[in-house]
Amino acid sequence: MKQKKVIRAYSGGLDTSVILKWLLNKGYEVICYMADVGQYEDFVKAKDKALKVGASKVYIEDLKEEFIEEYVFQALKSNAIYEGKYLLGTSLARPVIAKKHIEIAKKENTNLVAHGATGKGNDQVRFELAFHKLMPEVEVIAPWKHEEFLKQFEGRTDLINYAKENNVPIDSTAEKPYSMDDNIMHISYEAGKLEDPKFEPFEDMFKKTVNPKDAPDNETKICIEFKKGIPVSVTNLTENKTVKGSLELFKYLNELGAKNGIGRVDIVENRFVGLKSRGVYETPAGTILLSAHRDIESITLDREVAHLKDMLMPKIAELIYNGFWFSPEMEFLDAAVNKSQENVNGKTYLTLYKGNVMNVGRESENSLYDENLASMDVHGGYDQTDAVGFIKLNALRLKLGK
Amino acid sequence: MKQKKVIRAYSGGLDTSVILKWLLNKGYEVICYMADVGQYEDFVKAKDKALKVGASKVYIEDLKEEFIEEYVFQALKSNAIYEGKYLLGTSLARPVIAKKHIEIAKKENTNLVAHGATGKGNDQVRFELAFHKLMPEVEVIAPWKHEEFLKQFEGRTDLINYAKENNVPIDSTAEKPYSMDDNIMHISYEAGKLEDPKFEPFEDMFKKTVNPKDAPDNETKICIEFKKGIPVSVTNLTENKTVKGSLELFKYLNELGAKNGIGRVDIVENRFVGLKSRGVYETPAGTILLSAHRDIESITLDREVAHLKDMLMPKIAELIYNGFWFSPEMEFLDAAVNKSQENVNGKTYLTLYKGNVMNVGRESENSLYDENLASMDVHGGYDQTDAVGFIKLNALRLKLGK
Amino acid sequence: MKQKKVIRAYSGGLDTSVILKWLLNKGYEVICYMADVGQYEDFVKAKDKALKVGASKVYIEDLKEEFIEEYVFQALKSNAIYEGKYLLGTSLARPVIAKKHIEIAKKENTNLVAHGATGKGNDQVRFELAFHKLMPEVEVIAPWKHEEFLKQFEGRTDLINYAKENNVPIDSTAEKPYSMDDNIMHISYEAGKLEDPKFEPFEDMFKKTVNPKDAPDNETKICIEFKKGIPVSVTNLTENKTVKGSLELFKYLNELGAKNGIGRVDIVENRFVGLKSRGVYETPAGTILLSAHRDIESITLDREVAHLKDMLMPKIAELIYNGFWFSPEMEFLDAAVNKSQENVNGKTYLTLYKGNVMNVGRESENSLYDENLASMDVHGGYDQTDAVGFIKLNALRLKLGK
Amino acid sequence: MKQKKVIRAYSGGLDTSVILKWLLNKGYEVICYMADVGQYEDFVKAKDKALKVGASKVYIEDLKEEFIEEYVFQALKSNAIYEGKYLLGTSLARPVIAKKHIEIAKKENTNLVAHGATGKGNDQVRFELAFHKLMPEVEVIAPWKHEEFLKQFEGRTDLINYAKENNVPIDSTAEKPYSMDDNIMHISYEAGKLEDPKFEPFEDMFKKTVNPKDAPDNETKICIEFKKGIPVSVTNLTENKTVKGSLELFKYLNELGAKNGIGRVDIVENRFVGLKSRGVYETPAGTILLSAHRDIESITLDREVAHLKDMLMPKIAELIYNGFWFSPEMEFLDAAVNKSQENVNGKTYLTLYKGNVMNVGRESENSLYDENLASMDVHGGYDQTDAVGFIKLNALRLKLGK
Repeated sequence: MKQKKVIRAYSGGLDTSVILKWLLNKGYEVICYMADVGQYEDFVKAKDKALKVGASKVYIEDLKEEFIEEYVFQALKSNAIYEGKYLLGTSLARPVIAKKHIEIAKKENTNLVAHGATGKGNDQVRFELAFHKLMPEVEVIAPWKHEEFLKQFEGRTDLINYAKENNVPIDSTAEKPYSMDDNIMHISYEAGKLEDPKFEPFEDMFKKTVNPKDAPDNETKICIEFKKGIPVSVTNLTENKTVKGSLELFKYLNELGAKNGIGRVDIVENRFVGLKSRGVYETPAGTILLSAHRDIESITLDREVAHLKDMLMPKIAELIYNGFWFSPEMEFLDAAVNKSQENVNGKTYLTLYKGNVMNVGRESENSLYDENLASMDVHGGYDQTDAVGFIKLNALRLKLGK
Repeated sequence: MKQKKVIRAYSGGLDTSVILKWLLNKGYEVICYMADVGQYEDFVKAKDKALKVGASKVYIEDLKEEFIEEYVFQALKSNAIYEGKYLLGTSLARPVIAKKHIEIAKKENTNLVAHGATGKGNDQVRFELAFHKLMPEVEVIAPWKHEEFLKQFEGRTDLINYAKENNVPIDSTAEKPYSMDDNIMHISYEAGKLEDPKFEPFEDMFKKTVNPKDAPDNETKICIEFKKGIPVSVTNLTENKTVKGSLELFKYLNELGAKNGIGRVDIVENRFVGLKSRGVYETPAGTILLSAHRDIESITLDREVAHLKDMLMPKIAELIYNGFWFSPEMEFLDAAVNKSQENVNGKTYLTLYKGNVMNVGRESENSLYDENLASMDVHGGYDQTDAVGFIKLNALRLKLGK
Repeated sequence: MKQKKVIRAYSGGLDTSVILKWLLNKGYEVICYMADVGQYEDFVKAKDKALKVGASKVYIEDLKEEFIEEYVFQALKSNAIYEGKYLLGTSLARPVIAKKHIEIAKKENTNLVAHGATGKGNDQVRFELAFHKLMPEVEVIAPWKHEEFLKQFEGRTDLINYAKENNVPIDSTAEKPYSMDDNIMHISYEAGKLEDPKFEPFEDMFKKTVNPKDAPDNETKICIEFKKGIPVSVTNLTENKTVKGSLELFKYLNELGAKNGIGRVDIVENRFVGLKSRGVYETPAGTILLSAHRDIESITLDREVAHLKDMLMPKIAELIYNGFWFSPEMEFLDAAVNKSQENVNGKTYLTLYKGNVMNVGRESENSLYDENLASMDVHGGYDQTDAVGFIKLNALRLKLGK
Repeated sequence: MKQKKVIRAYSGGLDTSVILKWLLNKGYEVICYMADVGQYEDFVKAKDKALKVGASKVYIEDLKEEFIEEYVFQALKSNAIYEGKYLLGTSLARPVIAKKHIEIAKKENTNLVAHGATGKGNDQVRFELAFHKLMPEVEVIAPWKHEEFLKQFEGRTDLINYAKENNVPIDSTAEKPYSMDDNIMHISYEAGKLEDPKFEPFEDMFKKTVNPKDAPDNETKICIEFKKGIPVSVTNLTENKTVKGSLELFKYLNELGAKNGIGRVDIVENRFVGLKSRGVYETPAGTILLSAHRDIESITLDREVAHLKDMLMPKIAELIYNGFWFSPEMEFLDAAVNKSQENVNGKTYLTLYKGNVMNVGRESENSLYDENLASMDVHGGYDQTDAVGFIKLNALRLKLGK
């Protein structure tokens, strides 16, 4: 019988290596796939390891630019933020990773894909919904929801023992007091000690930003230019330096945000699988961009469009969080969102300082803000007596009833 | 013919005194009404002035507690924030002021009320919609929308000349480079130089908070306790001091927020009358409370209720902003919001530091967060294999169609 | 070892009797529970059968009035209708059945409940979500999702053979060409031949209403009176007959609707489990009441409340359809809906004729309709020139931008 | 001084002729504009009359096809219906009429437009919002909101006298007991006797449809085919006749609907200007098409898209009703709606009978309905045990809290 080929998301860690071996022992041919979404990772070393353990091939895919341009910036257009605080750093990375995963499966002529996400989390859902949408005939192998696997590996010790018995190289790193997921947009921390929602994380946990207290005493003043709702350049006004290009400017904003202690968030959030979970996030560039985008929208977006967007935004964030990036309802909502961004052009001025992102000014050639109209000193074509009838008719229905 | 009696909102400023005189000259009996919502104001001096100019009576009403308890805290329950940034400090004060205004009119047996809001702004709408709702037979005198008045007073000079000619005492204060409205919740700045949306306000404008740069180098750690969605105590953990009572704790949070540079916002917002306007706000206690309230909700509110609230919140904020506080639709939405707060009890821990309000922990006896359930190490009654069916059925419809 | 006690929903049909025996053979003590929600059923005969097969006890519970008053009328307040057509007759019956099911379980001191719904349908979800909500420690036995059971019973023949082998009495009724569920509110038909969405059902399928073609050639004119959004009396104006009492008037409307061919619907609907399904329904009284309720709301409900209700209604219908009757989000939405109904009082006049429910008039002491105000001939306190300012300010933002 | 040129919407009736003369007497050059949206009107006679009264030119514009294709069908895509009943026949005609009105103004090089709508109604808003949007510099002359005009013409007698004095030809038609507006989509009746919401209109009022009682005793069976959400053909299965072409099929559906007594509605609706108003409508083709469109969507639209559309539909209907057809928010919502219709293709089968539109079958090559999946007898790739995990995870959050 021909050996079945499975495409396995691989990261180089203990779990992932054990799962690789376990799949090989099950008789699969395993092709490993590493998505580079900007995480801290030694891809060369991880590839070597995968091949050593027995992978027949290793794909390393640089998805950073696609991630920023087609996922992060698309979400930005809608001002997506989950439950008021979470900028969806992990949620947005999952679909771009899954999409390439399926592309490789198609190229390798198999419908078998494997991932290492657990059965309690959000990522399993995000990966698998994308898999099913992009390849309806897909078969997903998810060891952490596999009864046999779960019985075999009840704790970390079982993984280590299995690794030793099977000559799987492992790093001698101690277990972290929490789990971490990172990419170019953010780092998330959860589990472990953070499972106590009252526990305040220690400073040494944070890897992407400095504590606001350790940020510079001087402000950094920047200007971000948008075209059709997308940032196209970042200028550091303090240093007179301009950066263009999606990936480059995003990295630069990460650098500025990180230095100024921007983008830390501590939240108890609601997972799609029905439980509440505590997460801590660092999202420097994303935090700056959300503030900047809302600000440029404030002078370029019509009021009613802005309010409709505000009403629909929680739904969009929910869909992204729950793993419905590739879905008819996202296409439906994105069509409206994209329409709204056609004139979202202009420059917005921000001050970064010890954790703060402060909007201080904005300008646009598509501005709907009319200084004369708004002026309290100038008529600007506005007849104040019009307000009399306006208010009287708005009050009409209020006067009826009791 | 009997003289008609009008109840006139009065503040002691130039405009307001001129309007008082103008009404007297028109032949009205004028009763002045001053609402104390916590603004900086010398009520005694203003009262003297009103009587000197010719008011037949002056009401001074302390509405601070009612304002905080029935307006600010009610809005807090819904997390109301307008266009992502504005905490509605002025919008919330208008209905409580208008309500007392009508109560006085009823007591004084008249249906004539006068206010000094302009025809371009939001406040005229907020006042008048409340007037009409609470007294359907009301007649509103709004000189700034009165053609004769507008022709007579084209600029500040006309007001000053009229005051001089009519022995209306005026202070020799220079005109401000912007207009200001304040109460215990916030100060707003608009107009004048701020009408250029790119103009960054000077530091000396801000009256309620220090610049984050001038805030203490040490964090202030606090704990806020909520009952049914309402803050009931604030504890300064750094100084081991607890403050209770709605008004007292709100003032204390103002003090802590002000000192730590919290609550400044710069926004271009959409007015109900159809134009965009630039506003700058300082809302120290309100900013802390919104963050605290969202956080205590995060462990006590069901996911779907939280998401419905997030979807309806922009509508609630819009209604408050537009002046529909007293309306059937607010009652409709408030009924749901109040229902949602029944178990929003518990303590939330925050760190205040140079403009930042950081959530660092929370706890509640009504917590819906289940540590065992959430744990990545403990089963906690959660069977990971359940996720298989869950995802497969969620994926079902995605696999259909192209 | 003590025998485990299970409370089993029982109907007397083939499946249900086989499952009863199967549970007994598994070693359970089985208590049967029959909910009377107005379906066509010989409860005495079914009870005898259950006892004969081996049930240790049979509960027969009359839930009709509770069903109408607390479920059907509550849904009516929100005008709930699923996907534009389905009046939720089955969806509304499930929670009241499940609630009593759990009450019996508690009384009988067990946490084991069994139902006979399949794994593809909506009812399993509705039953089980209610079970879990009302008794978190519940254990659900659902044979049609039980692997062993599914293997044992692959088709109807297996059921019949098992019945014969186990002395389970069976009626010799032929298999229906579709499946049916009925209660006092409606009958639903699905499956079998109806699975072809293009297949037009035969006339002999319909059990609750006549075909409009067979309805009387004369109109029936009725008047329905509402108090707080609830019907309190139905008057047949043609026959000068009045019926009061929730259950009685509902039955009377069923009678009138049935006779006049009212309430048939043919739809392809979206199930919560992710698939589309074709259903045909007959809902005579419900159809009349929805039309009547919307009509009485039209003169008693404020415009903005009505529009908010219209926006939230699809969500409410979705929650009912999906089985979330007992949920925090339903409580949240119901609080608003109940608030809205406080003044929904008055009489509405309808003509029933061959499938049509025609609104022809309405009146209310709480009417917000003001004849003078609405009149084109009378001013009624409405100043037409107010419309000038009203429109100009509404147009203001439209004139900006391109 | 050069005479100012005004473009005047003209219909040939008494009011409209008097206004024409009044404008001429005011010294304007008046160009008349008659929009043919399918109303009953003798355009040649009306044109003659306008020229006789003194119009310098008369434009007659056939807008029927544009009206159906770009307005009626666009609204159909969203299933727009106002307050549950009104199909927006007048609301949809106003923007197409206004658009051409402005085109003529531009062609004639003037910014002056006049209409004859009153200050209490919806049409003034719909016309004027469109005017302002399409020509920001427009000046609107609306005599019925003009103080001088209102004083001069207090009743019908004043109009008749003015006509006689100014040699304006008038027809000797008696005043109608209600006012009427008609176009190819519908006729609306309001005012007069209908102002009593309890008054049931007499049968002789209805002009477009027969009473269901007078409709044929035999059913008419039809099939409507849709492409991208738009009807492209209507087949009368009873007579084996097919009609194609937007305008032609719409007229044919009007004919079938009219004959079968379809599309009458009696409603108290909420006007944008704040008052409630009673309207009676006849919309034969529109009623059939809405039912058909919802039905074809039922097998071609994803569940979540359908539910989002249902939630947004009331907003879309409100915008159309209130006159915001040309607005950024309609463009925003239409972008989503248009996206949703890409696969709304197929045939739907309906039975028309004495006021009833009955869906009886549907089919589509883009069907998302999967017979095997839906089948209760066939597995069809659906594993019933998946439902266990699905329900358990959906129940998880319900078990928390009290």
